[in-house]
Amino acid sequence: MATHDIAVIPGDGIGPEVVDAALPLVEDAAAASGVTFETTRFEWGTEYYLDHGEMMPEDALDRLEGFDAIFLGAVGHPEVPDHVTLHGLLLPIRKGFDQYVCKRPNVLFEGIESPLRGYGSGDIDFVVYRENTEGEYADVGGREHRGLAHETAVQSALFTRRGTERIVRAAFEAATEREGHLTSITKSNAQAHSMVFWDDVVADVAREFPSVDVERLLVDAAAMDLIRRPHEFDVVVASNLFGDILTDIGAQITGSMGLAPSGNVHPSDEYPSMFEPVHGSAPDIVGRGVANPLATVLSWSLLFEDLGERRTANALWDAVVDQLAASSAPRTPDLGGSEGTEAVVSDLQSRL
Amino acid sequence: MATHDIAVIPGDGIGPEVVDAALPLVEDAAAASGVTFETTRFEWGTEYYLDHGEMMPEDALDRLEGFDAIFLGAVGHPEVPDHVTLHGLLLPIRKGFDQYVCKRPNVLFEGIESPLRGYGSGDIDFVVYRENTEGEYADVGGREHRGLAHETAVQSALFTRRGTERIVRAAFEAATEREGHLTSITKSNAQAHSMVFWDDVVADVAREFPSVDVERLLVDAAAMDLIRRPHEFDVVVASNLFGDILTDIGAQITGSMGLAPSGNVHPSDEYPSMFEPVHGSAPDIVGRGVANPLATVLSWSLLFEDLGERRTANALWDAVVDQLAASSAPRTPDLGGSEGTEAVVSDLQSRL
Ligand SMILES: CC(C)[C@H](C(=O)O)[C@@H](O)C(=O)O
Ligand SMILES: CC(C)[C@H](C(=O)O)[C@@H](O)C(=O)O
Repeated sequence: MATHDIAVIPGDGIGPEVVDAALPLVEDAAAASGVTFETTRFEWGTEYYLDHGEMMPEDALDRLEGFDAIFLGAVGHPEVPDHVTLHGLLLPIRKGFDQYVCKRPNVLFEGIESPLRGYGSGDIDFVVYRENTEGEYADVGGREHRGLAHETAVQSALFTRRGTERIVRAAFEAATEREGHLTSITKSNAQAHSMVFWDDVVADVAREFPSVDVERLLVDAAAMDLIRRPHEFDVVVASNLFGDILTDIGAQITGSMGLAPSGNVHPSDEYPSMFEPVHGSAPDIVGRGVANPLATVLSWSLLFEDLGERRTANALWDAVVDQLAASSAPRTPDLGGSEGTEAVVSDLQSRL
Repeated sequence: MATHDIAVIPGDGIGPEVVDAALPLVEDAAAASGVTFETTRFEWGTEYYLDHGEMMPEDALDRLEGFDAIFLGAVGHPEVPDHVTLHGLLLPIRKGFDQYVCKRPNVLFEGIESPLRGYGSGDIDFVVYRENTEGEYADVGGREHRGLAHETAVQSALFTRRGTERIVRAAFEAATEREGHLTSITKSNAQAHSMVFWDDVVADVAREFPSVDVERLLVDAAAMDLIRRPHEFDVVVASNLFGDILTDIGAQITGSMGLAPSGNVHPSDEYPSMFEPVHGSAPDIVGRGVANPLATVLSWSLLFEDLGERRTANALWDAVVDQLAASSAPRTPDLGGSEGTEAVVSDLQSRL
């Protein structure tokens, strides 16, 4: 069997803590299911920026391109503006490797209390397919007349047919493998240029998937409904910005940002996909050894699933599910516990 | 004392139901506090559109301009696209009368159960100042190459210094009259053209208000934090789109869209301000007599407050607060009751 080559970018803040802690566990899970992989570490991020004036070297994408997948810890630093750090590392990789599917499962696991009254384990289980390369995050716009009374800033959201069709199609495909229910998020009532176009594309692609039942929901109503009736969602497809907001709500209602995994997927072999926990670099808890490694472990699970290594993927996912369900298992403070990263990982090890 | 001239546009769906039911109550509250007002009804909306091909007559703004305030029920119809109905009535008034402050209080009233665990009466009390005339809802953009593989849609968010400064300043002023805490919502890490500009304006205006403590929060984090720690918010200032999303979350965590009032305020005498419940036309319950009139009554309260008629404003607000706190008072189905609009209004009447 071929060895998978994985690039690992631990990044900033708690990124290296969770990545380093999880790696031995991931290796064990792979070994136990007969999968071999090798990791190559890239020490890029804000430290690198402070030394070199850039978040990663100019040829970073060339160096990453040959890998089968990328694992990213976190990016962001309290002393460097986000539009420097993110635009210097995370976003160029998402865009450069055309990782147009940002896939974010939201599951309320057994043993986790949702902040929503009346919701218990298993009641929430949906996945968001977020467009990840264009839309409201397109680097199109500008600012004129700085500091003057008529100063004006423009930020243009860019939606292409190709870009929209492919994320919508990916979401429809996911729906056929789940409950067959797709919710498309729009704001057509106020953004008639972009969102009416989005609706049209959804209507076009829907014809290819007659078995999928499609609901259109305005982003403001969707934000409400994720609080009011999250159990009714199955697959959600949304633009870059809307998906960003709704997945954070999804993480919150399923208990903790510390449990939210994600994949930035380019669905062909042309480029590597990148997997990362949804949480950020969490400067407030850096160095204290209490960062929750579970989103990292779940993100590795998504990575192996994407590589077709279902057994490894399941072993990691199930270890997390088991641990959360066990009332005496160690937990980090964000989940109400008082244990550290290492204790959580060694407990997972015993559940492989 | 001068008579206030109020234009009333009942609009679509449950709009006329809640407007008509509430009006006698509003008249009584005004009379009891020595305030006189006259209403002029405008039967504009989707019915009008189906007859005339437009949501309101061409000279609508001229006809509304002389009024002291406008009360709007709801706009929207299941058979006519929102970008027709809203762009034909609601949005032209907001923009035409330069109603740049969309003010939306979010209060968890006694007697209302929040969907959030652990939150009880009084625990949530913040107000959102949403920019209401530009930003992501600017009608700037277009769509080319329709139906072709290279079709592209652009939706440009437009932020002007004047437009941004004035909403930010209004929010700072509100903060000085409340707890002195302002949260500014951005997405500067991904929208570097518009949102870094927004941050700069906030920093500029902040210098005029040294007593106000300012927090910057990314919109995705804010959506999470409204679920995780809503009690910590006081005044929130946000762009048109971000304010839209966050106020819907605010309505939901404080129990019901049926309780959320709003004002579209132009803060000088040049144009009338417009008040409306945040809920829409609710086609699913039209004609059943069960629409919740409370958001309408609270919106009238905001209207009188804006006209400087504090006693009338308080009488209406307090009647709602009283009713909600009374466990035996009638409630509409959205609040878990089984009574209708009329029963709720007559109970309010007894509490004036
Ligand atoms: C850090 C930021 C640019 C990023 C985004 O909005 O895409 C993050 O919020 C996420 O959701 O991955
Ligand atoms: C109907 C729609 C255009 C409107 C908006 O987004 O402004 C509504 O959602 C609101 O919040 O008042």
